Amino acid sequence: MVARVEHSVVTGTQPAPVNHLQSYTFDSLPLQYGGRFGPVTLAYETWGRLNAAGDNAILIAHALTGSSHAHDPEHPDDPKAAWWNPLIGPGRPFDTSRYFVVCSNVLGGCYGSTGPSSIDPSTGRPYGMRFPLVTIRDMVHAQRRLIEHLGIRRLIVAGGSIGGQQALEWAVCYPELVEKVIVVAATAALTAQAIAFSEVGRQAIMLDPRWQGGDYPPGQGPDAGLAIARMLGMITYQSEEAMELRFSRRPARAGEVPSPTRTPSLGKRFDVENYLYYQGNSLVRRFDANTYLYLSRAMDLYDVSEGYPSLDTALTRIRSRALFIGIRSDFLFPAARVRWLAERVRALGGEATYVELDSPHGHDAFLKEWEQMNAALRWLET
Amino acid sequence: MVARVEHSVVTGTQPAPVNHLQSYTFDSLPLQYGGRFGPVTLAYETWGRLNAAGDNAILIAHALTGSSHAHDPEHPDDPKAAWWNPLIGPGRPFDTSRYFVVCSNVLGGCYGSTGPSSIDPSTGRPYGMRFPLVTIRDMVHAQRRLIEHLGIRRLIVAGGSIGGQQALEWAVCYPELVEKVIVVAATAALTAQAIAFSEVGRQAIMLDPRWQGGDYPPGQGPDAGLAIARMLGMITYQSEEAMELRFSRRPARAGEVPSPTRTPSLGKRFDVENYLYYQGNSLVRRFDANTYLYLSRAMDLYDVSEGYPSLDTALTRIRSRALFIGIRSDFLFPAARVRWLAERVRALGGEATYVELDSPHGHDAFLKEWEQMNAALRWLET
Repeated sequence: MVARVEHSVVTGTQPAPVNHLQSYTFDSLPLQYGGRFGPVTLAYETWGRLNAAGDNAILIAHALTGSSHAHDPEHPDDPKAAWWNPLIGPGRPFDTSRYFVVCSNVLGGCYGSTGPSSIDPSTGRPYGMRFPLVTIRDMVHAQRRLIEHLGIRRLIVAGGSIGGQQALEWAVCYPELVEKVIVVAATAALTAQAIAFSEVGRQAIMLDPRWQGGDYPPGQGPDAGLAIARMLGMITYQSEEAMELRFSRRPARAGEVPSPTRTPSLGKRFDVENYLYYQGNSLVRRFDANTYLYLSRAMDLYDVSEGYPSLDTALTRIRSRALFIGIRSDFLFPAARVRWLAERVRALGGEATYVELDSPHGHDAFLKEWEQMNAALRWLET
Repeated sequence: MVARVEHSVVTGTQPAPVNHLQSYTFDSLPLQYGGRFGPVTLAYETWGRLNAAGDNAILIAHALTGSSHAHDPEHPDDPKAAWWNPLIGPGRPFDTSRYFVVCSNVLGGCYGSTGPSSIDPSTGRPYGMRFPLVTIRDMVHAQRRLIEHLGIRRLIVAGGSIGGQQALEWAVCYPELVEKVIVVAATAALTAQAIAFSEVGRQAIMLDPRWQGGDYPPGQGPDAGLAIARMLGMITYQSEEAMELRFSRRPARAGEVPSPTRTPSLGKRFDVENYLYYQGNSLVRRFDANTYLYLSRAMDLYDVSEGYPSLDTALTRIRSRALFIGIRSDFLFPAARVRWLAERVRALGGEATYVELDSPHGHDAFLKEWEQMNAALRWLET
């Protein structure tokens, strides 16, 4: 089944054009932590054409609150129109004149794929917290079904953050299918500190009285809680250095943004606060709170070695050439850990390259440092 | 007026023995941002004896959720009995056989001093959010009144974190009174990132439906919101390195602690989550939520240069010998910024020493690294 679907975001307005959004539905999927779940729909977009051999595909995996809209051919030069726009298109690293580029919304997502905000066919109501716990491995297994459906026989996988976790998992899980893998700002497993930040955000969402155990009516979700979680997320996606450059202690300019709780500031307001309120409020208009709980948890739980005798055993499975991209100022996925992972793969006989983005922008640099990303991705041509 | 008072914490049990808690009440205090506020009571404890000249005093300023109970002569070897216990006592750096050591709960606090949880005499109800915005400078002005009341003519001031901000402010505000100053893990002003973390915590408190605009009945405050704020605070007081050493990705051991929102874990629970829940729940039993809002905001707003033509003008006022202690792994008050401050004071002709604690424990190291703190404080004898 290939059909155009609407975003299943339960709150607010649509984030991006969905002109070319397609979907694929299959009956069910076995889950990593037991049981089967279905039906599963994956929403996806494609650019370029698959060749007859089915071996010129690139699968791109999005970040936590991203969607399948990685590229916008109608506005290819606008980085805000699609999240990896400057890297995708004719003559760009993910060259749509040569490659068949696919990006799908993850299993558990709220941009057209089946997730907590989808209607449970057995009840006619959103799954909410009755949605099963899905993992990075489950997301990859679901993508595998889509890839088969599209007739892809061999592929390159690339992604950053939770998308980078998926890229790594692809290389370990399906070594026979993956020709090259690009893991950006992701590691073998999150640090205790990253898990801790993640849990604070989730607690804020669940503290919001509008959360109601996850059974909020569409459009009436825990906006304040989700905005607070996003505020914290945005701090961890940046760096002390970047925030100092951008905000320092400057007071907020005219046009104050309401805080998530709509409470007045204690004393003056700082620009960094206005910025975070704005980011929090923006996410609320385009993202589902339960989805945030599930996807952020999948990041916490991911450990590439899970189910294998050791990390080395898992990494030894990789047969593709691998590019690991770390970011100097990333404190959520520290560059040293990305580099370590690349070195470990190489020590185990794999063909791994490590490139570090020299950026002050923290974790988010893979969505900002277009020149450096372009330069790093020349690796694809080597 | 010197009298024994009870802690004014509105929720839960007492944190520490209050045997020797005294208090001093004065009519009113002019506030930095305008107006006068009163009456003001400061709760305090003292150890050792003031000499006839009134010049052997050390004033110690506590951290955000601390109290006047810096030392416990009945349990002098238990660091948990009082927060700076191992540094205070006969033969220790803050030598009570030589010095008259004073520690007062800050203005705005909830351990006996007048703060948001105190009863407003004009209404018979807690001030709540009707409490005025108080600043580090106001806290220092209030302490000055106490110091005068005690007959102290010349003193040493020492503190960490918000206590370090107060120590710095003392040296700039009252150069004629301060003989030596010890500023631990504090800088001229918070970074944008630190303000951002702080605001996320406050939003979580105010999101809790039990906050009720600050007018919660005693004992029925926003426990979940405060616990979440504390969870976030605890992350920022540590470091990635320390949390990795202590928790890594270890699953929670037996005896699960309820999360602030009392929701079950999504999948397994990590030990770091259990730890943070425990820390959050613990603070709720001993601290007032509105007080957390006010004191954390005072930290954000503090800028030693405020009211002076420049930072240099402010720092040039310092006449005391100054010891600045930074912590290698502190990301809330980065060591580089503490060092910079010391170097600036020296460049302006002041007598400043910088010592860095080589600790993985982050901001909290000044409450943990007793050997290094002891070594650093030998400076007092030079």
